[in-house]
Amino acid sequence: MSEILTILYSSEICPFAQRIVIALEEGKADYTTYEIDLDSKPEWYAPKVNPTGKVPAITYGGPKVDPAEPSPDSIKLYESLVLLEFIADLYPNSGLLSDDPVKRAQTRLVIDVFSTKVLPAYMGVLWKGEPPETLHNALLVLQEQVALYASPYLGGEKLNIADAAIAPFIARIDFQLQNDVGNFKEGQGPRIHDYIFKNEALSIFQKYAHALLGRESVKGSFPQVSITASLLSMQP
Amino acid sequence: MSEILTILYSSEICPFAQRIVIALEEGKADYTTYEIDLDSKPEWYAPKVNPTGKVPAITYGGPKVDPAEPSPDSIKLYESLVLLEFIADLYPNSGLLSDDPVKRAQTRLVIDVFSTKVLPAYMGVLWKGEPPETLHNALLVLQEQVALYASPYLGGEKLNIADAAIAPFIARIDFQLQNDVGNFKEGQGPRIHDYIFKNEALSIFQKYAHALLGRESVKGSFPQVSITASLLSMQP
Repeated sequence: MSEILTILYSSEICPFAQRIVIALEEGKADYTTYEIDLDSKPEWYAPKVNPTGKVPAITYGGPKVDPAEPSPDSIKLYESLVLLEFIADLYPNSGLLSDDPVKRAQTRLVIDVFSTKVLPAYMGVLWKGEPPETLHNALLVLQEQVALYASPYLGGEKLNIADAAIAPFIARIDFQLQNDVGNFKEGQGPRIHDYIFKNEALSIFQKYAHALLGRESVKGSFPQVSITASLLSMQP
Repeated sequence: MSEILTILYSSEICPFAQRIVIALEEGKADYTTYEIDLDSKPEWYAPKVNPTGKVPAITYGGPKVDPAEPSPDSIKLYESLVLLEFIADLYPNSGLLSDDPVKRAQTRLVIDVFSTKVLPAYMGVLWKGEPPETLHNALLVLQEQVALYASPYLGGEKLNIADAAIAPFIARIDFQLQNDVGNFKEGQGPRIHDYIFKNEALSIFQKYAHALLGRESVKGSFPQVSITASLLSMQP
């Protein structure tokens, strides 16, 4: 589907934007990426693409234009979870979302668990000095969902929108802890990494994480060099 | 559709549950309601229906049972936004969600604006003593979306899931302010009511609110007597 012009305004260091790259790649979408420098956003970006000024955003349709000169005639969409549903709607045969109402609801419930439990715990433990147990316990809750639905992905053999929503953060948890980058005492990262990734209580989560991190759409959208530089600049 | 057993676990005073009643009514769904007393929840509710213990929740399918004895064989779903999408998926011809991917995304964006802007402002101004401007300004942001899409409802002649998500809170803002119930100085409610509902800057919002509050599915699911009692008990 889609000779319709689709431009993704993205930043390669942003996990929310990575969600959308993963979904577009899994949907085999035809799209153009325009990189937004989050430290120095183009003046036209908020007024012409996304009033919130954030990435990711998509312009859809309208005339063929230079992404730096967005057309007023294209549709402007943003918010990563809205965009994931949009891509699943555009590519109904991609596996991004089942066509069974119950399975669709279950996929959205997993995203809700991730958003309300794991995301705050990731921020808390990696950036705000909260104890590692917070992340461990949040991942135990996510693991209940993973145990119910993942084989190996939540979408089965393909990724669904819950996998796409989760993967960028698992990649960061793994990478940051292994490389000791975050707001915790020097040398603590690898210890917390063991506590999360080698702890038997989280073995079902670990198997899922391993599958996700090996997926081409996930690996290919996680540029370690840029992300390392960005993370180091965030470190206190 | 659906001879499949659908039980809504609800509380008539809960705005999140009211969202689901509105959607089920608009979808002309065949369902049974079971009222949960939020001050004294049945012991079986969290373990057998919704692990978070909150309403609304839906059990779907399984054998015909007494709602007070939920079957382990039914599907358990919860979180009001997940349920709204579920009902729209079950009743694709209800108008609850367009079949056009762009319109679906726009409807979800309105819900996001409502959730991130208006909902915190409602809580802030009606219950936490924040200045009325907070709510006024949040409604101005919502009004931009209303101006783009509502005629008279966001779903056109029928309600869509954004209308269903928004209506219970508009009903409470209107009712609480008019009846001077909330965490503000006595007598201030009606003044704030004028500031929100008679202010020319919000005229497009007001027209939309008026249409929503006149809709049978909204009126019928807003029991003023119970809600007054519940709100008074919340007042400091």
